[in-house]
Amino acid sequence: MTVRQLSLPGLVEGCVRLGVPGIGLWREPVATYGLEATAKLVRDAGLTVTTLCRGGFFTTAPDLDDNRAAVREAAALGTDTLVLVSGGLPPGSRDLPVARALIARALAELAPYAADHGVRLAIEPLHPMYAADRCAVSTLDQALALAEPFPAGQVGVVVDTYHVWWDDRAPAAVARAGAEGRIHAFQLADWSTPLPAGVLNGRAPLGTGTIDLRAWRALVDATGYTGPVEVELFNEALWARDGTEVLEETVRSYVEHVL
Amino acid sequence: MTVRQLSLPGLVEGCVRLGVPGIGLWREPVATYGLEATAKLVRDAGLTVTTLCRGGFFTTAPDLDDNRAAVREAAALGTDTLVLVSGGLPPGSRDLPVARALIARALAELAPYAADHGVRLAIEPLHPMYAADRCAVSTLDQALALAEPFPAGQVGVVVDTYHVWWDDRAPAAVARAGAEGRIHAFQLADWSTPLPAGVLNGRAPLGTGTIDLRAWRALVDATGYTGPVEVELFNEALWARDGTEVLEETVRSYVEHVL
Repeated sequence: MTVRQLSLPGLVEGCVRLGVPGIGLWREPVATYGLEATAKLVRDAGLTVTTLCRGGFFTTAPDLDDNRAAVREAAALGTDTLVLVSGGLPPGSRDLPVARALIARALAELAPYAADHGVRLAIEPLHPMYAADRCAVSTLDQALALAEPFPAGQVGVVVDTYHVWWDDRAPAAVARAGAEGRIHAFQLADWSTPLPAGVLNGRAPLGTGTIDLRAWRALVDATGYTGPVEVELFNEALWARDGTEVLEETVRSYVEHVL
Repeated sequence: MTVRQLSLPGLVEGCVRLGVPGIGLWREPVATYGLEATAKLVRDAGLTVTTLCRGGFFTTAPDLDDNRAAVREAAALGTDTLVLVSGGLPPGSRDLPVARALIARALAELAPYAADHGVRLAIEPLHPMYAADRCAVSTLDQALALAEPFPAGQVGVVVDTYHVWWDDRAPAAVARAGAEGRIHAFQLADWSTPLPAGVLNGRAPLGTGTIDLRAWRALVDATGYTGPVEVELFNEALWARDGTEVLEETVRSYVEHVL
């Protein structure tokens, strides 16, 4: 999504040229290019698909058919991780605990199905500013509590710096998630203000905001995590620029501010 | 601030007419109208000043002169509570724990001074979306930890539904704050999306958003809290309307959705 202006072949070519070994994909561009065609494109280039985004929205779409489809797509792409944006309040509801209970119930149904397909579910806590309309899971502690009933190989969490950087309890939760083997993905974006209207597309390029990204990488590293590190920037200004240039810049900023 | 388009006499007249027994004031309009004149205006109308907003920003203005002035203004207005917006990251810093340490240090200096003037400091945790630039204190738990070294009569917290509604740990923190006698103010605003650019002035009128305001009132009531309940809406659309009409509407929505 950081360079959604690139075609999938353009993205793959850029990653190969820059030494980026894997890519996190979103379902929509995969569907547009074709599921099998995407799998072959990435595989033939020697890249891995790190994660597929996204399943979830359990609170507004209790029918899990689309989530089962997402699981099958992840398996077809060769990734073991489906990222979940769990959903906010059901329509007309003001009850976050009920929303979280709906999420727990959906996980209980989806996790075994995913496991049968060799896919892990990765609950991504989203920043509390999305609690109403996108994700009632606002902290790593909550995500870990939801994952707890399941084996770590079935349900884990995504640690995304943009969503958890403000949380004084997140470092301990990262350590616990790592010890349990539940860090299924580690994503990076920086925080800058003022936030844009709608607060969706203001994620800042690495090193330009207020998050100590290297400290977060050290926290995750310290747990023994060896999985992928993804850069996920939703940013209108980046999307308006040349995608290859943004990709190169992102690699440089990753080296400078994270590695 | 809900009706900042009203003059102070207009606000006072409206409150008296509508049976609102007290008003929370901000320093800027008080300074414009005159400190002693404001105190007299409110007193002569038989109203109380519930709180003064605001002190704080300890992380960017370590000199406490302006905060001491705010304490004296609170005392002159006859309110016992100065609301604190504690401040975000110091310039160039990416270290939230350091910001919180600066806040703790400032409290240690300011609290005795405030106590000498009969004024309590009320730490307001702000929504995590303000952590970088306005307030590194993002949860009631953090606010209570900062208040803990001081007597409850010197330092407490503000419970504002807009800032804490998403937090699954907030109900327990409200109970603890109440048991400790540290709820110094209870403020109401509703949450609605999409948030406006800058995310400052999108607080929703009571009953129009996703917060179960009556449930929060019940939580605060259950602690034995008998202090003021303030409605604090920063909302461009409300500010653009006739202030008296907004005041009347706010009273009606308070009766309908909170009382």
